[in-house]
Amino acid sequence: MTAPPSPATVQVVFTPSGKRGQIQAGKSVLEAAQQLGVDLDTVCGGRGLCDRCQIDQSIGEFAKFKIHSTADHLSPPSAAERQFFPADSPPTRRLGCQAKLRGDAVIDVPPESQAHRQVVRKRADVHQITVNPAVRLYYAEVPQPNMHEPSGDLQRLLDALEFEWGLSGLRCDFHLLPALQQTLRAGDWKVTAAVHLDSRIIALWPGLRTAAYGAAVDIGSTTIAAHLCNLATGEALASDGRMNPQIRFGEDLMSRVSYAMMNPGGDTDMTAAVREAVRGLIESVAAAAGVDPAEVLDITVVGNPVMHHLLLGLNPVELGGAPFALATDQATAARAGDLQLSANRGARVYALPCIAGHVGADAAAVTLSEAPHQRDEITLVVDVGTNAEIVLGNRKRMLAASSPTGPAFEGAQISGGQRAAPGAIERVRIDRDTLEPRFRIIGFDAWSDEPGFAGAGGVTGICGSGIIEVIAEMFLAGIIRPDGIIDGGMAAKSSRVQPDGKTWRYALYQRGPGAGEGVAVHITQNDVRAIQLAKAALYAGARLLMDKLGIDQPDRIRLAGAFGAHIDVKYAMVLGMLPDCPLEHVTSAGNAAGAGAIIALLDKTARLEVEDLVGRIHKVETAVEAKFQDHFVEALAIPHKTAAYANLRRQVDIPEAAAGGESPGGKQRRQRRRVAR
Amino acid sequence: MTAPPSPATVQVVFTPSGKRGQIQAGKSVLEAAQQLGVDLDTVCGGRGLCDRCQIDQSIGEFAKFKIHSTADHLSPPSAAERQFFPADSPPTRRLGCQAKLRGDAVIDVPPESQAHRQVVRKRADVHQITVNPAVRLYYAEVPQPNMHEPSGDLQRLLDALEFEWGLSGLRCDFHLLPALQQTLRAGDWKVTAAVHLDSRIIALWPGLRTAAYGAAVDIGSTTIAAHLCNLATGEALASDGRMNPQIRFGEDLMSRVSYAMMNPGGDTDMTAAVREAVRGLIESVAAAAGVDPAEVLDITVVGNPVMHHLLLGLNPVELGGAPFALATDQATAARAGDLQLSANRGARVYALPCIAGHVGADAAAVTLSEAPHQRDEITLVVDVGTNAEIVLGNRKRMLAASSPTGPAFEGAQISGGQRAAPGAIERVRIDRDTLEPRFRIIGFDAWSDEPGFAGAGGVTGICGSGIIEVIAEMFLAGIIRPDGIIDGGMAAKSSRVQPDGKTWRYALYQRGPGAGEGVAVHITQNDVRAIQLAKAALYAGARLLMDKLGIDQPDRIRLAGAFGAHIDVKYAMVLGMLPDCPLEHVTSAGNAAGAGAIIALLDKTARLEVEDLVGRIHKVETAVEAKFQDHFVEALAIPHKTAAYANLRRQVDIPEAAAGGESPGGKQRRQRRRVAR
Repeated sequence: MTAPPSPATVQVVFTPSGKRGQIQAGKSVLEAAQQLGVDLDTVCGGRGLCDRCQIDQSIGEFAKFKIHSTADHLSPPSAAERQFFPADSPPTRRLGCQAKLRGDAVIDVPPESQAHRQVVRKRADVHQITVNPAVRLYYAEVPQPNMHEPSGDLQRLLDALEFEWGLSGLRCDFHLLPALQQTLRAGDWKVTAAVHLDSRIIALWPGLRTAAYGAAVDIGSTTIAAHLCNLATGEALASDGRMNPQIRFGEDLMSRVSYAMMNPGGDTDMTAAVREAVRGLIESVAAAAGVDPAEVLDITVVGNPVMHHLLLGLNPVELGGAPFALATDQATAARAGDLQLSANRGARVYALPCIAGHVGADAAAVTLSEAPHQRDEITLVVDVGTNAEIVLGNRKRMLAASSPTGPAFEGAQISGGQRAAPGAIERVRIDRDTLEPRFRIIGFDAWSDEPGFAGAGGVTGICGSGIIEVIAEMFLAGIIRPDGIIDGGMAAKSSRVQPDGKTWRYALYQRGPGAGEGVAVHITQNDVRAIQLAKAALYAGARLLMDKLGIDQPDRIRLAGAFGAHIDVKYAMVLGMLPDCPLEHVTSAGNAAGAGAIIALLDKTARLEVEDLVGRIHKVETAVEAKFQDHFVEALAIPHKTAAYANLRRQVDIPEAAAGGESPGGKQRRQRRRVAR
Repeated sequence: MTAPPSPATVQVVFTPSGKRGQIQAGKSVLEAAQQLGVDLDTVCGGRGLCDRCQIDQSIGEFAKFKIHSTADHLSPPSAAERQFFPADSPPTRRLGCQAKLRGDAVIDVPPESQAHRQVVRKRADVHQITVNPAVRLYYAEVPQPNMHEPSGDLQRLLDALEFEWGLSGLRCDFHLLPALQQTLRAGDWKVTAAVHLDSRIIALWPGLRTAAYGAAVDIGSTTIAAHLCNLATGEALASDGRMNPQIRFGEDLMSRVSYAMMNPGGDTDMTAAVREAVRGLIESVAAAAGVDPAEVLDITVVGNPVMHHLLLGLNPVELGGAPFALATDQATAARAGDLQLSANRGARVYALPCIAGHVGADAAAVTLSEAPHQRDEITLVVDVGTNAEIVLGNRKRMLAASSPTGPAFEGAQISGGQRAAPGAIERVRIDRDTLEPRFRIIGFDAWSDEPGFAGAGGVTGICGSGIIEVIAEMFLAGIIRPDGIIDGGMAAKSSRVQPDGKTWRYALYQRGPGAGEGVAVHITQNDVRAIQLAKAALYAGARLLMDKLGIDQPDRIRLAGAFGAHIDVKYAMVLGMLPDCPLEHVTSAGNAAGAGAIIALLDKTARLEVEDLVGRIHKVETAVEAKFQDHFVEALAIPHKTAAYANLRRQVDIPEAAAGGESPGGKQRRQRRRVAR
């Protein structure tokens, strides 16, 4: 085949976008893409220095485009391309800036070459991530100063960035000025600038630089997690978590607020502790990814209102009492240095907005990630901590509230309760006939009645998911009545039902031969009451929002956070923690708060989205709603006569006895359908 | 007189603006002013808490306004007014926010009640100052939080500032957030916010606050001056100056740049030194005015390029060699903390822009203050330092250049030269017949031939103005020929003309009985050459700009800075330092750089003006202009045959001898018209 005569213009079609047009022959594929509005990435601005603008030429006859695309319709590979691509690369792979158009061509832009590429998420039903970070890198070649045009080095840099990238009205962080002249000369007048929100230079390096990093930080009362991402590709490079060191000031949120109230300067101690932990985590994930913390240019932060305030250095005492006033309910911008975090000196921090005094930036992040506001179905999103943060709605209307569950679901205020940590009982089954329990502890796979459990080490207590399971199982076994009273009559059936003052208790774990070491764990009447109060509060909050929205049940329920990931939702439904919903539509949202922080890190438009969303969410304060009390009182009992309960009974192994009598064959069904772990 | 019936509207005329209109009866005078666009100040927003909105009611019949204004046309004085005004205040003086309109009224707004009041300057021919500061105080009463509307404290503050003052889109400095909630509560939800450029809250106090302060700082190579101003009234409260401690790194500019070049970290040492001095000066002027430095909210800075760069922490080495690249040629915004200055934590720093690598922010400030760009006449502004910064132009066109005069005018590179300091010879007269000198030294009023001079203490050297006078006087006395050669033939006339190697010198001061103590001061041929080179450079720079502008002489010449204030311009003209100009139009601009810094401090629109001005000034680099060399060579001689010189001769006592022969009666005229001090 001979080369076609050089036409004045050639026809170019880009796939997958389908954008096409007539382009002057001799222009590069990158120039053609820019002219036609095709999303083709570049950092070096088309100089063959970075390899971001890779494309594939599609060879052949394309009837639907009425175009014939042959190998010699692009200029031969340049020296720059030969350097980037090994000899065995597919011959169709080119650098868009080097390949010049000589004839009609079909050009495919692979996903990794799109500036605004999508990040693939594991689940399809959550917020999609487009890589469109707040901080971007721009390479520029800056004209040198001369005696005839005495402009400042900064102005020539700004002019170059405007000329090459269309960045007008840029400003430069003051801290960059001292090294500016040296940086320009060290790079022989070629530099890479990190620009925040297309408005401010926050970092500057000599020469070409293509990698920029960001950290998404999720500050829980118990654990803090950080995720390091490549801001250019969206790739998650490393994650790490550690205990929140504020635990030494108070196990749960309210005890930390109390610490701040009781101890002058206590808030600054807690602020210093959490900042140190976040600093260490960022260093840790950077090290894991082989990245210098100074290359971290952007940080997003989520957390409940108290954690959010303490990280930002805001005393949380106002959150400890009515009217629970936030210092700010809007997204907060700061610099990494303001928070003494490890990062580039110019790195920015973006704290997502809190929704209300008890509904934090974590709930905002969960909502952003779960994206109920993008769906027609009505979603109930529940994030259980010391308070349950509840969001309900769909694309038309969104509501949020916080329910005062207290820390019982976290194992606090439970006689044998503890945090979810190795040694804690997390799964419980009770034989319906013998009332003998079997259980599993965190950190060991075997059940307590399986061989080898003795090697499991000591039982240290029972965690949130364990307490829910044991109470649900006690109910299912008839040990607890629907009104929550431990039935002393069952003592006749098993010595595990024991008198405890004027009430009864259930001996879940007693030290003894063959059961390993550890502490005894009893479930007392007070423990049952604490869980009843907590679950009634959670239910009443959700019920209140459903009233406001005028619905009887949500289409789906998403349980966020560690609690949502660890509990067996069936047991939550048995206890009546959550409103009626088909069991298959009640699922864990995993670490949705962290996912929301990552979305806000990678996509600046998601920041506008969550700010707008938080503004639109109608906040319901349960404490001033009379109906909340009514719902709460109604929800104290364990439900057992509703249609939904009957439905649930068919899915879970619920004895008729618990509901007032055992049906024939009940035991057989139980054995057949032993609740799956 | 009985009160008129309450009309639905009343007619109000404000003087001196003449603004008038129909106002609903019952509205306050302040509301009427706001409605009619009358400039009436208020900080408290009309609550009778501050006394900024004082007005006078004009009583009587005002035919030209067709209005009858009687005492009962305003409501009686309120309790707030009785508190502010003593019993003997004129009864017409009222608070605009308290006085309610009941009938037609003529209201006079005194100058001190105008928000944008004028500051009276000593000279009429300079830039006027309107008080319109970048930082303003706003008082607001913030709604308290409640359970039904869970907005953040910050948002309610921002809403209040928008509602009461129309400040929309405000942001808040991050450093204010930690104390925000406490401040709001400490002030019982009444606060005063300092707002920068109507866009950012930079400080917040509980309750009402009406005083805000700013500092204007002028950093010279030799001395640093600071001026404390009341940002609300424009009043200058205190000024102070001190030696620039950088002198220990180098006496003149270029030796400091050399120090930075030769010593790694030398620039940061000099930066630390100048910042410490500025910090001390701000503390000093604040103390003198009885103001806490934390009440200083805004700071403007001017200085030559090297001083400007060192204060901002920018290494000045690039200014030490071609092409003399500035780090930035635009105005630089920073925070006081960035420069370790004493001020409010949120205080802003505004460094005026440099014009070019040798024409600094001091020249920009001088130009702002002198305002040649507002005049039709063409002004030559000269600021002499190590380099002479020269600005020439009028409202149509502005040019600037720097001439490499070297430090001779500052007394450096002169055998007996020194800085202007006590002990330095600053004035010299030489008897035309005997060649005997008389002189005066800094710090003592008597001339050397007057009684009591012996008590003057030691002569320590000769300063810039002294060296110019002695060389001009030597020329006038015939000791120096027009070509600058010291005429050895004059040794016959006086033993003060002495051989000095192969050349001659003039013994200005020799230790001896009756002449006090001190060092001998000789004027050598090298000294004359140094001044010739310096004055030729200055002249050639001015001449070059005049060429570019196409003029033969400027309409007026303004000499800025200490040099301009100390030299006797007649002698400068005798030596030919400056282009021809009627002597009465050659005047000292005083501390014009400091004045420019004050203007930029008090009036934010002057900042836009100077930024625009600096952008419009055409920069001429003398080093690359061939004509500069030509002018320089031509200007080396001391002029004596031009028309302008003949004219000058009529004003100054110039002997015909110097010009080639003494006319009859010359000596008599000399005696009659002895040059005035």
